[in-house]
Amino acid sequence: MRAQFPVLSRVAYLNAGTDGPLPAAAIQAAAEELAREAEEGRTLAHFERRGELNKGLRGAYASLLGCAPGDLALTTCTSEGLSLVIDGLRLGSGDEILTSEEEHPGLLGALSAAREVGGVAIRAVPWSVLASAVGPHTRLIACSHVSWMTGSVAPAALAEVSVPVLLDGAQGVGAIPTDVRALGCAAYAGPGQKWLCGPDGTGMLYTTPELRERLAVTRRGYANLADPSTGVDASLHEDARRLDTLSQNAETVACALAAFGVLERFGWPALHERARLLAAQFAEQLAARGREVVGGHARSTLISFSSPDPLAERERLAEHGVALRDIPGRPWLRASVGAWNDEGDLERLLDGLSS
Amino acid sequence: MRAQFPVLSRVAYLNAGTDGPLPAAAIQAAAEELAREAEEGRTLAHFERRGELNKGLRGAYASLLGCAPGDLALTTCTSEGLSLVIDGLRLGSGDEILTSEEEHPGLLGALSAAREVGGVAIRAVPWSVLASAVGPHTRLIACSHVSWMTGSVAPAALAEVSVPVLLDGAQGVGAIPTDVRALGCAAYAGPGQKWLCGPDGTGMLYTTPELRERLAVTRRGYANLADPSTGVDASLHEDARRLDTLSQNAETVACALAAFGVLERFGWPALHERARLLAAQFAEQLAARGREVVGGHARSTLISFSSPDPLAERERLAEHGVALRDIPGRPWLRASVGAWNDEGDLERLLDGLSS
Repeated sequence: MRAQFPVLSRVAYLNAGTDGPLPAAAIQAAAEELAREAEEGRTLAHFERRGELNKGLRGAYASLLGCAPGDLALTTCTSEGLSLVIDGLRLGSGDEILTSEEEHPGLLGALSAAREVGGVAIRAVPWSVLASAVGPHTRLIACSHVSWMTGSVAPAALAEVSVPVLLDGAQGVGAIPTDVRALGCAAYAGPGQKWLCGPDGTGMLYTTPELRERLAVTRRGYANLADPSTGVDASLHEDARRLDTLSQNAETVACALAAFGVLERFGWPALHERARLLAAQFAEQLAARGREVVGGHARSTLISFSSPDPLAERERLAEHGVALRDIPGRPWLRASVGAWNDEGDLERLLDGLSS
Repeated sequence: MRAQFPVLSRVAYLNAGTDGPLPAAAIQAAAEELAREAEEGRTLAHFERRGELNKGLRGAYASLLGCAPGDLALTTCTSEGLSLVIDGLRLGSGDEILTSEEEHPGLLGALSAAREVGGVAIRAVPWSVLASAVGPHTRLIACSHVSWMTGSVAPAALAEVSVPVLLDGAQGVGAIPTDVRALGCAAYAGPGQKWLCGPDGTGMLYTTPELRERLAVTRRGYANLADPSTGVDASLHEDARRLDTLSQNAETVACALAAFGVLERFGWPALHERARLLAAQFAEQLAARGREVVGGHARSTLISFSSPDPLAERERLAEHGVALRDIPGRPWLRASVGAWNDEGDLERLLDGLSS
């Protein structure tokens, strides 16, 4: 498996929580699409090809989330999906969105827009008590599936709340099991470029039909109109394609699909289990080295740990051939452990630590 | 010049109004970015590289529109830019948007959303009288810069109207001069993949500062937040980056930038003049063959002409190695004539016509 990811032969790459390692097969797939476009031109056959690729990627993502392809929209990133739901609800003053205290700017940005444009109240509470904090004005819970800071997994109690739940799956999909039926969420937004090792500019948005029909969709074009020839009377696709990003090129979609194929071949349960075990082992090793590992329970594949000087240590690790990141405003470094990593990557990181 | 576009050696490619011919240098640039990402991983240096590429493309597009880079947002397509303005104004019942009777689904889709979601009245009048049709409830004029059906150019009187004008530049930018100051528009949305020969999934949106500050921006992420670390208090970039699409990958942007470079080298005035002359010559040849050429005045680089059976003739021309398109619902074929075309391409089309 490791041979399929060129970066792994050079770097202990522990940065999938930002962007995953790109497999050689994925960049090859993109190059083939581009060559075809340049040689043959982009006419009817090209648009048919784009339709096929989109269908393929939609089916791939849907299979991983355990939903129907018709409930899955293709987006350019997690933030875009979060915005489509939060803005699409067109909430106003008197309405409240409940969120947690450890969210990512991708979600907080969409929430800031709801507050600024719609006058919606945004209430942040500790993640652990989120499910019991629903009040009479709460219209939506919006929070992480997996915390980008600590790697903790969302409380299971969220599956039982009485209001729709929108999960930010930036650190979930591809890293840990993500069956949206088991999660009980109304919407799940995720990225293609992190734990699925695809190109930047890819992502997904799952929505239930019930939530989807409540969402205003204001961006419209060939991609999401059912019959574009009907002008201002045009209606949107009935299914989740109505939320699709308007133009994602063939090379990007082919790249994402090929990356997905490289991983899928090993089986998702096996990939998830391998990453989970590696991450748990790594947390133990860090603790043995005297580093405090953040988030003691319900850990995922993100391991955040204390650092005496995160920026300097990150820099030193980079020189040592280790790729990871710091968490702004916290005295932590964060390692993203994927099924493509091995003990050697973790040892290299441990070797590079200052003490 | 022609040697730089692989498709031109195989096909009389007259389809830039859909998607332009991709230069070899552009697909090479994309391949190099992808190889770098796969080899080096995607860490801090990668995000700095993406920032540089975005800055380069923003500057390139701005130079062509005659605006400051700070007034130009990067989008994934024309339709997206049109939606950002039309939805961003958050007009409501009692407000009216004025448009013409020959608009493209990309604009009509955004207008249908304003009507459906906001209750905005949409009034369509003949393009020629648009400027004098402004009424007391008109808040915006939204129409083509160049008609996708006939190739006619927007009436110059639009530069003098009292309400903001949003131009759909899908068939303008790259094809004919597009100085937004001379056009007098408040916003101009255009594509990267048509007359600029870039990849699908690229585009631009120019806005004046005055219009921009009135636009609600609900999609937010790292790309358009001034300081993402400030959470729900985060503010947007002051300049047009606030309207940027949230995630456009390095390979796509590098591809667009390289395509732009291939064209720019010849000088835009020379390119525009060559395409204009070729198109005019072609219109004469078609008329001499007894085909009615649509839109008798203010023609651009799109030449639409009568066809006894557009779908069958399009198909037959494709077999003859000629790429062009029909216009749904009209008895026409449409040839897109670019500076990369030559007399041989036009002869091949004329040879392939049924009579």
